Parts: sequence; structure tokens; C-alpha cells
Amino acid sequence: MFKPVRSRNPLLRLNPPQVLAFGFLIMILTGSGLLSLPAASTSGQSMPYLDALFTAASATCVTGLSVLNPGVDLTKFGQLVVIGLVQIGGLGFMTVATLIALVFRRRITFRERLILQETMSQSSTEGIIRLIRKVLLYALVIESIGAILLSIRFAFEMPLGQAAYFGAFHSISIFNNAGFDLFGAIEGRAGSLIHYVDDPFVNLIAMPMIMLGGIGFIVIADLLDYRRKRKLSLHSKVVLWMSSILVVIGAIVIFIFEFTNPATLQPLDFSGKTFASVFQSISARSAGLVTIEVTDLRQATQFFIVILMFIGAAPGSAGGGIKVTTFAILIGAVLAMIRGKQDIVFFHYRIAQDRVYKAITFSLLSFLLILVAAMVLSATEDYSFLGILFETTSAYATAGASMGLTSQLTPFGQVVITALMFIGRLGPVTLAFTLTPRMDKEPFRYPEGKITIG
Amino acid sequence: MFKPVRSRNPLLRLNPPQVLAFGFLIMILTGSGLLSLPAASTSGQSMPYLDALFTAASATCVTGLSVLNPGVDLTKFGQLVVIGLVQIGGLGFMTVATLIALVFRRRITFRERLILQETMSQSSTEGIIRLIRKVLLYALVIESIGAILLSIRFAFEMPLGQAAYFGAFHSISIFNNAGFDLFGAIEGRAGSLIHYVDDPFVNLIAMPMIMLGGIGFIVIADLLDYRRKRKLSLHSKVVLWMSSILVVIGAIVIFIFEFTNPATLQPLDFSGKTFASVFQSISARSAGLVTIEVTDLRQATQFFIVILMFIGAAPGSAGGGIKVTTFAILIGAVLAMIRGKQDIVFFHYRIAQDRVYKAITFSLLSFLLILVAAMVLSATEDYSFLGILFETTSAYATAGASMGLTSQLTPFGQVVITALMFIGRLGPVTLAFTLTPRMDKEPFRYPEGKITIG
Ligand SMILES: [K+]
Ligand SMILES: [K+]
Repeated sequence: MFKPVRSRNPLLRLNPPQVLAFGFLIMILTGSGLLSLPAASTSGQSMPYLDALFTAASATCVTGLSVLNPGVDLTKFGQLVVIGLVQIGGLGFMTVATLIALVFRRRITFRERLILQETMSQSSTEGIIRLIRKVLLYALVIESIGAILLSIRFAFEMPLGQAAYFGAFHSISIFNNAGFDLFGAIEGRAGSLIHYVDDPFVNLIAMPMIMLGGIGFIVIADLLDYRRKRKLSLHSKVVLWMSSILVVIGAIVIFIFEFTNPATLQPLDFSGKTFASVFQSISARSAGLVTIEVTDLRQATQFFIVILMFIGAAPGSAGGGIKVTTFAILIGAVLAMIRGKQDIVFFHYRIAQDRVYKAITFSLLSFLLILVAAMVLSATEDYSFLGILFETTSAYATAGASMGLTSQLTPFGQVVITALMFIGRLGPVTLAFTLTPRMDKEPFRYPEGKITIG
Repeated sequence: MFKPVRSRNPLLRLNPPQVLAFGFLIMILTGSGLLSLPAASTSGQSMPYLDALFTAASATCVTGLSVLNPGVDLTKFGQLVVIGLVQIGGLGFMTVATLIALVFRRRITFRERLILQETMSQSSTEGIIRLIRKVLLYALVIESIGAILLSIRFAFEMPLGQAAYFGAFHSISIFNNAGFDLFGAIEGRAGSLIHYVDDPFVNLIAMPMIMLGGIGFIVIADLLDYRRKRKLSLHSKVVLWMSSILVVIGAIVIFIFEFTNPATLQPLDFSGKTFASVFQSISARSAGLVTIEVTDLRQATQFFIVILMFIGAAPGSAGGGIKVTTFAILIGAVLAMIRGKQDIVFFHYRIAQDRVYKAITFSLLSFLLILVAAMVLSATEDYSFLGILFETTSAYATAGASMGLTSQLTPFGQVVITALMFIGRLGPVTLAFTLTPRMDKEPFRYPEGKITIG
């Protein structure tokens, strides 16, 4: 199905992750060109190209980190470019990542793949088209409902036209976990969703939309089929179970850490405290929207959010990070080792050894990359270390929350963060596709040697 | 050999790591009792018990973090208690850890163990005694040479009696990578070895002694046998190779990061800069001694040292951390995965799968523990996050360098750091002994399930 077909045209020789990377690169470059037009800036002057590049990359990778304030610095044209990149980048990624994941789950052998290609090439193309249509349909339905509900809420505080525009923009931004907002346009309004910290209506629309965007299309499809099939796949069970645990634990930790903080939870009543804790917990892992200013949080909470961002959302979703499934495997590996078990078992299935190995390697690589980036930025940027770690993790995990470093990055730092967003968005799915150990026995293996580790 | 013999006396039923933990606990409690005597403090008054407990734990676990200044606050009696705990804790640990490692390398089966016990119990006891004698002999020879050389150097700047005492104290502290120093006793003298930052004599004595204390007894014995055997074990090769790489890379990174820092390298000439970079690189991973004030380092360098401390020294040595061999396996796993190889191969030997698994799990556990501790201390201590991360890593890795938090810990923080030192010193060898997955096939295995990770 995905076997690279030898073609004279080098573009046709690319595998799916390469196509995705190439497409993202074109989108980012096109977007940066459009954003650097004078028509995109309210100042009427071209913004610096590096800022346009950063914004286009952040939008395409649905990160949400921003060197400018979209509601203030961008014209409606500029804002449409940003939300357009979010929509295409977000849905495009979800579609391709879902395709890759489904192919991997089927685990077709090379021989089967050859046969498939000869006999079923047409029906497989049909399958792909049907899948894409399904993803787009689900996404558009969710986004439309969100847009209508948000527009109704916003109509209470702004003219109807603006409310509809704000409803649509933020619905797309929220579902794609993109983190961009326009509230800077309203005089005296705090950024992101801070104004709505204890507004039940906005909270109850935004939270499920963030979650739907973050659990991935495979799980959504599985949930929709549940009434008919009466069972969920192992993948869906792990995603739903791990996501729920993380949301609950996250909310409890934030609630406890911030309970007495006069800058965050302390002034709110109990329901406000609960909404704020749960929203931050849900949003932190990938959405990038906040109802509490990150810089006001206690240091312990900020670091906790770094960990949540690193874990991220589900594979094939709008979210990033190492993914909840990878995290589940890591936890499973530690528990299995402590209990002296050979296998990691989830819901009566053991996890394949190569998958465990891949999860661990991928986490290590992600961790190393963030460490190196944080160390380099510690040398070039004049900022607290936690702030730097927060921003690099947010970029790599395409989470989008910020402790403020992004707005005062050096040009070098801006390039590093831009690169991290791109790598963070495309690296994982590329690795999942390419990093498959040749599990057929190698012709020669070295003898086993022992070294001491403890 | 180490099979727990069923005995009526519960103490005799302990396995070696349990004996070690029990012994350390007794040492720490006894030491804390002695240190809280009025005779131990120059003030003539008992120090707070928590301070005595912290100091005794830090000495026994050869960490070197200190809530007091041994050269100023402790009487000669107090200082002798500290260096006595260092000597017994350091050598005791090295001996037992070496025994455990050697048994593991032999990989005797349960049946063989039973036979061994029946027929060779006497000769195995002899073997143990011979090994202990060897470890003590090597350690005492190295410490004696160090003491003599350091005494000669110190005689140039203090009375002969004091020079001999300082030589012996610091030789023990340096070889056991303990990090304690008495230089506070000298009026106007900076702490640790900062006075000797570009002194070739002290540098050239301390650096090899730290390295000998950090590579572990197995490697030292292997090196001494090299002339006869003409070959090194795989374990020794990996330790020596990885340690060398880390020392060189560490020195280069520190040299580059600090080159223009007026508080550290900038005022020194080229040889001084080199000495300072190499010393910090060698010492950071476990010794806890510094010739540059840690708080003067750039943020990037401080974070780099956190990573070096986490990696640590060799198994069965005076140093801590996850160990260079564990780190080598992590790097090997990432490289093997990237290159699509099934095996991690070092020097033409592949690393056993269970060892790889153990290395990864152990690193993850260590990492999680440090993260949780850092997060908790972020909530209770009023200090920069990097400072907190530095101190928790230093404690868990029994490294001993400090960014200053230790001297102003809350009582709760003091208890957390004390616990981290104890767990960090004994956890790894306990895990290495106990965390052995039952590699014999389990009677029932769950079917394999697939989840997506990327
Ligand atoms: K995001
Ligand atoms: K130490």
C-alpha cells in the first residue's frame, strides 16, 4: 500500500511521512510569504521575515507559540492565513498520521503488500479516499457545532458579525489544539481564554473540543462504531484510559499546588477553582490555550505542566508530545520490571516487544533533543532555566503554552524554536514509520556480553 | 552463594543489598548521634539533630552536600566522625557492590547455586574474604599516596601537623568522591578546591584519584591484571571508553560555555582554563569537589552539570548516578534503533536483552524520582527551579556539588534531600540485584496487541 513505487519523478518516490514533511514545508514557506506581505500587518508594513516564518510554522504545526499578538498585530487577511494554515495543517496531519497508523496496525508483510498492490490497488485507493472523507466530515461537524455555540456565547459581548467570526476562528483553533486567539483585539482583555476562567459555557464547549482534537481520529471512529460493535480496540482503550488518568491527576495536582496562590486560584470560588484546574489540565498537554496566565503559576505547577506537555496527546491527533500511548508503555515497562514480569500487559493484551523498544527509544530521543535545545538556549537567551525548558518543551510537543520567552527570543532562538516545532510535529510520525527494527534474524549476531549497570 | 539461607534470626535472612542498607542505616544513625554531641560542634552546643542526620547521611553515602561548613562548624572530633563515615561508607559500598556485580556476571543458575552452597561454601567464603582484602588494600595504597602528596603540597602553606591532617582528610574525601573539605578553617579561603583552580600540583593529584575512585574496583583490578592477561573485560572497556568520552566532551563543553565568563574562566590563562574545565568535567559526575564556584557558572553550564551528575560514575565505585554503563546502553539503544539494528553491540559483544531492559527501566525510575522530588521541592522551597533540579540530582546521584539550596533548606526539604541521598546510594545496587525479570517462560502469556505510539 505504501511501498515506494519506483518512478522517474522523485516526488512520487517519497513515502508518506516524506510527503507530509514536504507538504508542511511548502505550507510554511507559502504562509510565511503571505504573512510578510504588508496587507497582513495592521501596521501596514511588512513584518520581519523571521516573525512571519515563526508564525506560519507555529500555525501549520498547530503549536500556538507566537512572537506577535494575532488579534492586534494581524489584519483580518493575516488572521485568515493563520487559521487557514491551522485548519490545513491540523486536518492534513491527522489524516496522514491516521493512514500510517492503520497500515501499521494491519502489519502486512512484504509479500502481502506486493499482492495487494497487484490486485487491490484500486480498492486501496478507494479506501484511502473514504478514510480522508470520513476524517474531514467528523472534523467539520465538530468544528461547526463549536463555531455556532461559541458565536452564541460571544454575541453577548460583541456585534453579531464579529461574534460569528470569533466563533469560527476559535472553534478551529480549539479543535485543532492550535492555541491561537484573537482576544487581544478587545480593549483591555487578557490574552487566550483568561477572561473566561470561570465561565461554565466557554469551559464546557472548549474542554470536550480540545479532548476530541487530542484523542485522534482512530479513537473517535472507534467510539462512533461502539454502539454497533460493542467493543473498543486496544489502542482506543489505552488512549481513553491514559488520557482520563492524566486529566484527573493533572487537575488534582494543579488544584492543590495553586489553591492558595492569590494570582491564580485563590480568588475564585470552588466551581471556578475546579473549572480552572480541569481546563488547565486538559489544555496543557496539547491545546496551548489557558484560562490562567502561565507566568502567574507557582514554579512547581509550571514544571508539572512541562511534564504534561512532554507526554502530550494521542497519536494521529491534533496534539503532540511523545503521546499518551508511549507514556503508557513507559509506565508499563517500569511496573513490569518492578514486578519481575516479562510482558507489559494492557487489557489482557501484551504489548509487542518491538513496540516497547520503539516507545522507549523515541522518548529518549525526544528527551535528548529537548535537553540539548534547552542547554543551547540557556547559553543564547537571557531567561530563567525553567522558562527556557518550558518553551522548548512547548515547541517540541507543539503544545503552545508560554512562560513568556517566545516574545523576547533572539533571532537565533527564534530559529531554534521554529525548528523544534517542525521536528516535534513531524518527527514522531516519521520515526514511527521508519524506525522499524529488522526483526528478521540478522545473518550474523555477536556473542552476548555482560556489563554491570546498577 | 547469595541465596538467602532460611534462618531463625531474621538478620541472617537478608540478601546483600538489604545487609548494605541495614548497615548504612546503622552507620547514619550512629554518626548522627555522634555529630549531635556538643563535642562535635565548635560552638560547644549540640547542633540541631536534623543537621547531624543530614551530615551523617551525606558522609556515609559519600555525597558531599552539606548544611554546615566542616572546616568551621565542626571540631576535630566532628571532622573525624565525618571522614570516618566517608571511609567506611565508601569502601564498604565498593566492596559489597563489587561482590554483587561479580556474582551477576557469573550468572549462576539456581541449581548451580545449590551445588555451590553444598560443596564450595568454604572456598566461596574464602573468595569473598580475599576480594574484600584486595579492595581494602588497593584503596589504602591509593589513599596513602594521595595523603602524602597532598600533605607535601599543603606544607607549603600551613604548619606541618595541619598539613598532614589536611592531606589525609582530603585524600580520603577525594578518593571516595565524597566532596567534603576543611578549607573553611583557613581565614579568607574560598570553599572546596577553588583556591587551587590553576595549581597544577593539586589538580594532577586530585584528578587521577577522583577517576580511580569513580571507575570501580572491577575495572581497577582488570587494569592491574592487564600486563599479565593482555586483555580487558567487556565491562572494563565500556567503563573506560565511556568515562573518557564523558571527560573529554565535558571539558570541551565547559571550556566553550565559560570561556568568556568573567566570574570563572575568563581571568585564567590558557593552562588555567584547561585545568579548570577538565577538573570540573571529571569532578562533576561524582566527586562533588569544585575549583570554580557553581553559582558563578552560566545557566547552560549548570544544566550541563546536572546531566553529567545524572550519568554519574561506574558501578561498584565511590560515585553514583545511573552509571556510565547504563548511559552507554541508552545511547546504544538509540543508535541501534536509528540504524534499524536488533542488537546493541559494544566491542563485538551484543548486550543481553534483559540488561538493556533493566538499564532503561532503572534510568526511567531514577528520572521519575528526581522529577517528583524537584516538583515537590519547587512547592516547598523558595529557590530557582534550576537550583532545585541541581540539588535533587546532586543528592540522588550522590554527586555533592551545590548551587546553594542545601544551605537554606526548610526542614522538610532537608528530609527530602537526606532521603534522596540514601535512595540514590543504595537504590541502584538493590535494583540491579532484585529487578531480574523471570526470563523463564511464564506459564500463560496474553496474546500480543498493537497500539500506535508515534
Ligand atoms: K498546540
Ligand atoms: K560525591
